[in-house]
Amino acid sequence: MSKLKIVLMRHGESKWNKLNQFTGWQDIKLSKYGEEEAYLAAKKIFQKKFFFDIAYTSVLKRAIHTLWIILKFINHSWIPIKKKWQLNERHYGSLEGLNKTETIKKYGIEKVQLWRRSFTILPPFLKKTDLRHPHYDRKYNFLKPEELPSSESLEITLQRVIKCWKNNIFPNFKKNKKILIIAHGNSLRALIKYLSNMTSEQVINLNIPTGKPIIYEFSNKFIPEKYYYL
Amino acid sequence: MSKLKIVLMRHGESKWNKLNQFTGWQDIKLSKYGEEEAYLAAKKIFQKKFFFDIAYTSVLKRAIHTLWIILKFINHSWIPIKKKWQLNERHYGSLEGLNKTETIKKYGIEKVQLWRRSFTILPPFLKKTDLRHPHYDRKYNFLKPEELPSSESLEITLQRVIKCWKNNIFPNFKKNKKILIIAHGNSLRALIKYLSNMTSEQVINLNIPTGKPIIYEFSNKFIPEKYYYL
Repeated sequence: MSKLKIVLMRHGESKWNKLNQFTGWQDIKLSKYGEEEAYLAAKKIFQKKFFFDIAYTSVLKRAIHTLWIILKFINHSWIPIKKKWQLNERHYGSLEGLNKTETIKKYGIEKVQLWRRSFTILPPFLKKTDLRHPHYDRKYNFLKPEELPSSESLEITLQRVIKCWKNNIFPNFKKNKKILIIAHGNSLRALIKYLSNMTSEQVINLNIPTGKPIIYEFSNKFIPEKYYYL
Repeated sequence: MSKLKIVLMRHGESKWNKLNQFTGWQDIKLSKYGEEEAYLAAKKIFQKKFFFDIAYTSVLKRAIHTLWIILKFINHSWIPIKKKWQLNERHYGSLEGLNKTETIKKYGIEKVQLWRRSFTILPPFLKKTDLRHPHYDRKYNFLKPEELPSSESLEITLQRVIKCWKNNIFPNFKKNKKILIIAHGNSLRALIKYLSNMTSEQVINLNIPTGKPIIYEFSNKFIPEKYYYL
């Protein structure tokens, strides 16, 4: 009997992934290579004859455009797309836009590794007067000021991702909708940690590459079982 | 005081527009020229500094891809897109896929003109066993069989378009949402007939070109006033 499945994928490479900069909530577009990655992923998904009823993504263009490339290729442009800010990348605080190597030089490798890989530690906060702060961005106008992060740990990211999973995605999955999720390195780490019941130590070593479709399998009672790369 | 406005546009040229074939509900992609038209429209909309909160389109890819090109160009990829089958092109019955010139040779110019321009007359029905019939298309699975057309007059098209206007688009407009609609020649003729209170005779001469943004102005009490091309 064929398993219940959800397809997850991190967006293709963005211009800042390429430049080795912290991105987070900064809305950076795909690089040419990132677009190519999206096409390759689309081809794989097409060859495996997946079909979908609904797609979820973040409100960041690197994820949305990756999704559009896939849907166009697999002839699914017509399906509803839900763009949820809760699926955004982790907010990297004042590190957003900084070069990763220079940040290591400035703060030391240990501190930066903690900011990047710890489950609970937050990077330095972004000031509200800083133009990179999300309250300057029209796409978050409908959120209450206290909902807008100035920095996030993976733990905080996980809370909002799982809220979206429980309130939006899972109810549709239980109605037997076929679901595609295009999101970000850390929002997907959070989701997989939750589904696979990983400890905060286990998730440290979970790295999700750009543009590689992940199949998450569930029992016919919608219990998460395992995941693997397509 | 600046007027309340909605931006409407017919999709860019499709591959069948180019080949002079009746298209209707057949899901045909944009031609290269149609993509260019979408970019030019996007540039105009961008130069006039329009911004939008929500976009409406049909479930047909020539409209959806036109919308995606515009949203990407004007940095609005994140806004919600509602894809409504009620905004689809008029269903052209068994004429769908036929070359317009050959159809005139076969049936005579008068009959074809009536099918194309009359308000109430329907083109010949598409048989349910015909593979072009919408009940073979996954995107209409959620509709009841009796809701699926086998042919439509402009009058029938108007009824579904206006239902969508009244139930979905207008309530958001009244909440002061800025709205962009990318649809089709006949679904837009129907909408403009309704908003401008045109007679069935007047709408005969209303032709909407591909890829040209239309601004529809309303009074501050949301009463339709006039429209013009951008």
